[in-house]
Amino acid sequence: MITEHAVLEVVPGREDAFVESMEQAKALIAASPGFVSLRVERCVERPSRFLLLVEWDRLEDHTEGFRGSAAYDDWRAALHHFYDPFPVVEHFETVVTA
Amino acid sequence: MITEHAVLEVVPGREDAFVESMEQAKALIAASPGFVSLRVERCVERPSRFLLLVEWDRLEDHTEGFRGSAAYDDWRAALHHFYDPFPVVEHFETVVTA
Repeated sequence: MITEHAVLEVVPGREDAFVESMEQAKALIAASPGFVSLRVERCVERPSRFLLLVEWDRLEDHTEGFRGSAAYDDWRAALHHFYDPFPVVEHFETVVTA
Repeated sequence: MITEHAVLEVVPGREDAFVESMEQAKALIAASPGFVSLRVERCVERPSRFLLLVEWDRLEDHTEGFRGSAAYDDWRAALHHFYDPFPVVEHFETVVTA
């Protein structure tokens, strides 16, 4: 399993609209093959900062499958305008748990 | 529930030693009151980068309880020398799930 990770800097004042748009848009990503789970979390110390964690079966389910899909165009249109700067998206694999 | 989040930049060449030390040290944090879970993940794109995600019942379980404990001195001694630069640690609360 692979975790997609991004720290999202949302334009100040647009936080509530972002959360509402994410609630609508999450069905787009959740329907993509290989999708396992999504969590969006809000930062306590800096409330315009959010954390995106998406679990995928395989790296390619995100990088090729979802990003190459028509649904990704809708995801991008719904969400990307909230971010400034545009986030760095990376992938992680679990090495230690407790 | 609160997620403690940090991106850990480990000194290149010290990644395996870091993972081994984390395996040893995780019992220190797991025994702390309010601890829920820990995940350490390794970055696919940049293998010296790790993600630390610790779930706590309450913010204070981390910021006051664990950080104020004798166990934290041992945690710091076991792990902090692997990081360059020292990580930014922040806390998040879930707002959207799928």
